[in-house]
Amino acid sequence: MSDDTLVIAGREFTSRLVMGTGGAPSLEVLEEALVASGTQLTTVALRRLDPSQQGSVLDVLRKHAIAVLPNTAGCFTAGEAVLTARLAREALQTDLIKLEVVADDHTLLPDPVELLDAAETLAADGFSVLAYTNDDPILARRLEQAGCAAVMPLGSPIGSGLGIRNPHNISMIVEAAKVPVVLDAGIGTASDAALAMELGCDAVLLATAVTRAERPALMAAAMRDAVNAGRSALLAGRIPRRWHSAQASSPITGRLSY
Amino acid sequence: MSDDTLVIAGREFTSRLVMGTGGAPSLEVLEEALVASGTQLTTVALRRLDPSQQGSVLDVLRKHAIAVLPNTAGCFTAGEAVLTARLAREALQTDLIKLEVVADDHTLLPDPVELLDAAETLAADGFSVLAYTNDDPILARRLEQAGCAAVMPLGSPIGSGLGIRNPHNISMIVEAAKVPVVLDAGIGTASDAALAMELGCDAVLLATAVTRAERPALMAAAMRDAVNAGRSALLAGRIPRRWHSAQASSPITGRLSY
Amino acid sequence: MSDDTLVIAGREFTSRLVMGTGGAPSLEVLEEALVASGTQLTTVALRRLDPSQQGSVLDVLRKHAIAVLPNTAGCFTAGEAVLTARLAREALQTDLIKLEVVADDHTLLPDPVELLDAAETLAADGFSVLAYTNDDPILARRLEQAGCAAVMPLGSPIGSGLGIRNPHNISMIVEAAKVPVVLDAGIGTASDAALAMELGCDAVLLATAVTRAERPALMAAAMRDAVNAGRSALLAGRIPRRWHSAQASSPITGRLSY
Amino acid sequence: MSDDTLVIAGREFTSRLVMGTGGAPSLEVLEEALVASGTQLTTVALRRLDPSQQGSVLDVLRKHAIAVLPNTAGCFTAGEAVLTARLAREALQTDLIKLEVVADDHTLLPDPVELLDAAETLAADGFSVLAYTNDDPILARRLEQAGCAAVMPLGSPIGSGLGIRNPHNISMIVEAAKVPVVLDAGIGTASDAALAMELGCDAVLLATAVTRAERPALMAAAMRDAVNAGRSALLAGRIPRRWHSAQASSPITGRLSY
Repeated sequence: MSDDTLVIAGREFTSRLVMGTGGAPSLEVLEEALVASGTQLTTVALRRLDPSQQGSVLDVLRKHAIAVLPNTAGCFTAGEAVLTARLAREALQTDLIKLEVVADDHTLLPDPVELLDAAETLAADGFSVLAYTNDDPILARRLEQAGCAAVMPLGSPIGSGLGIRNPHNISMIVEAAKVPVVLDAGIGTASDAALAMELGCDAVLLATAVTRAERPALMAAAMRDAVNAGRSALLAGRIPRRWHSAQASSPITGRLSY
Repeated sequence: MSDDTLVIAGREFTSRLVMGTGGAPSLEVLEEALVASGTQLTTVALRRLDPSQQGSVLDVLRKHAIAVLPNTAGCFTAGEAVLTARLAREALQTDLIKLEVVADDHTLLPDPVELLDAAETLAADGFSVLAYTNDDPILARRLEQAGCAAVMPLGSPIGSGLGIRNPHNISMIVEAAKVPVVLDAGIGTASDAALAMELGCDAVLLATAVTRAERPALMAAAMRDAVNAGRSALLAGRIPRRWHSAQASSPITGRLSY
Repeated sequence: MSDDTLVIAGREFTSRLVMGTGGAPSLEVLEEALVASGTQLTTVALRRLDPSQQGSVLDVLRKHAIAVLPNTAGCFTAGEAVLTARLAREALQTDLIKLEVVADDHTLLPDPVELLDAAETLAADGFSVLAYTNDDPILARRLEQAGCAAVMPLGSPIGSGLGIRNPHNISMIVEAAKVPVVLDAGIGTASDAALAMELGCDAVLLATAVTRAERPALMAAAMRDAVNAGRSALLAGRIPRRWHSAQASSPITGRLSY
Repeated sequence: MSDDTLVIAGREFTSRLVMGTGGAPSLEVLEEALVASGTQLTTVALRRLDPSQQGSVLDVLRKHAIAVLPNTAGCFTAGEAVLTARLAREALQTDLIKLEVVADDHTLLPDPVELLDAAETLAADGFSVLAYTNDDPILARRLEQAGCAAVMPLGSPIGSGLGIRNPHNISMIVEAAKVPVVLDAGIGTASDAALAMELGCDAVLLATAVTRAERPALMAAAMRDAVNAGRSALLAGRIPRRWHSAQASSPITGRLSY
């Protein structure tokens, strides 16, 4: 799998685990977890950043040559998100943006209307937009048509740890997408991440599943292994599902068998 | 996790992936897969073995210092299984035996009555019995009481690739067992193996999921990573499941949340 | 449950099963199925209607005093849907409209942007809009804010028979909604309909699950019973889920236990 | 469905809901629930019975012409169960017996060895044995071979309300059985009962799902409707499962699609 490279917006990555930084109890714990995860791309909320500050998360990322993916967490309207993205571009000298426009601070679910509006504006403005979205195949298609560099459907609500609630929708998104699909939000444990990759996602993004685990660095290693495992399993071509072993001549395959 | 050692019948293993050899298209493919899996213990059907033969699977195991776990595949009665186990002990100079007593060659499901009968006989005869069983917590308990060194509940029928059909039963077995629990049979892909470990199984045994995959060595690597991922995730202490993120003060945990 | 009345847009219904008419092999079969279902509200595609025609589905509905719910099936834009709704209002003398705006004729999934646009226009124009939507809690909320009389989330794609793929989302919609929630699309068999009601939906809408079953009238009776069963079970207050019976003092409840 | 009769041990029933009596807060509540359920066969623990007592549950059953099915609840060995069955036969003048031999009073799971032993003894002694068993297809086959009149696999542990944890196993049992299959234990709500029937079970047995619901009589009515719904849905021939509606020409059927 040495040549199995992920390309997002022209950048190449050998790791398919994108990390977030929210929820870490300390910068030391975060650093340890990021290193253990093997991530090459980590998202940071611009609102929590002070790029001029010493000892910030940005220093940690620079130290380990991890690319920074600024995000618009905390934005509730297209206008706020566009403004935040522009500030991020200026401050961090990157046109990559993880676009989050949530409907409320209760569910943290994306607002489809504001999200699409912001995506169109930012794509037209030259950003490479990675859009955090719900798991609706039609909205994913519209975001792609709006010029997004990647679509990032949720498995379940942010921070819920409920895993992938609707594998059928994720499969429909993967089947139709011509840009990378990154499973973002809801991952609770390693098997969730492996499943995301087996469904054909190009990468997985997670934060609190690692930062709020009892042992963050160990969970980060688990997620690194799980993403690799799921990716390899997809490429290796799994055996079909069968009623039982003797049914060898008529496997029950079908894409619905989850 | 360097000191996270699995002990079965006094033997120590750092790998928690037990491999089978059935279904491999060639000895070369099997060897490549075994190496990629990192396994330290591999089960072989005595009925298919000719220990004196050159170029056999036993040679491959010796070459890579993989311990051999003879099994009684193809036995339908306690009597056949006991006889086969004794032949295996003599031929292979090991008291380890993976005890399989299946009800028919159609479902390949274990026969609980013959299985328990054989387990009692073999344990009394000094064998270290690893018993392939259904996922009934009571039968698992009885096998342990009969002196088995490990219980090996199925996730789903052999060769079905249906994964773990009843995580609740596996959890009940794990909770009660004082001997190692090895998930045996039914694994189809990497996330299945990770889930087995997250449920608390001590190891995973699989064969056709690897040997009949399109690319066996790559799937073997996937399973190695998945077992590691699931084990690490268990030890790392996953985040609780929540209704959504804002429900921070009242997590919906509970052991039933799969 | 004699006083357990469903109210949608000021109309009262004692049946909570809304029927569709698509897919029936003949008008006779359809009539038999509608009668067996006990439905009091049935949706009809305006595009397939010729109200002046003798022996049409409208005659069947009139004969059995079943209210007609015209729908905008076959519309791909807000403009088409609004026009179709207005034609329906004129032709059928009702301000009820089941609003469908689908993204393509391949998936038949709703287009969230066009749907919301049409809902706003029609609600402002005095229609009682029942909006067929995906299962996104945020879009459901926006449709309610736009003035819809009911939201109708899908369980899975139209005609798929896949049941309710994401009970968590349906529960979130039900919890937040102040208008009736009608599970629409994806029902395949009776237990799917019962589950919808147990999740708190106010009604279920289905068509091909009945019209394309081998015995439509018998399946219609099954759906009638299933909707009643699920509704009664919700009102009856089910027992909590427990690890096993002996765990009487600490039930594992929690809304996530599906 | 007027001629859809269930036959167990030569008795005919038009209701496919077998009730239990455990857990009822009072005899009045129990009577109301039994009537609402429409049951024609109800199981009673011999250990809790005093047939000579006025105002007992037996009086209620006689009053409503409900057949009594004595059970051996509370027995932990074959010997106890056989003795209890013989006492029941004498006291109640019936050769019907619901055979329960549980492994402990903690899990209430059946003990496969003692159960099979008792079943063989009782069948040879002329009893019509309805055997409460785990969901192992092989044990079910052995019980049938031992002469049982019906096999009664659990959906999940008694009183757990967890529904059917392993539909695959229930389907395998149904496919192979030549005697009636009654889903016994684990039912929590109406959709669970409907699913049992859709999987092909001939009847459903439940107790605490009704007796411990907040409104027992209403839940009993729900279960009656759910069993009817599931039975009708099975006979009506459900639509196949499809990826989405446009995939009309290649339905994803297959028996595994639950």
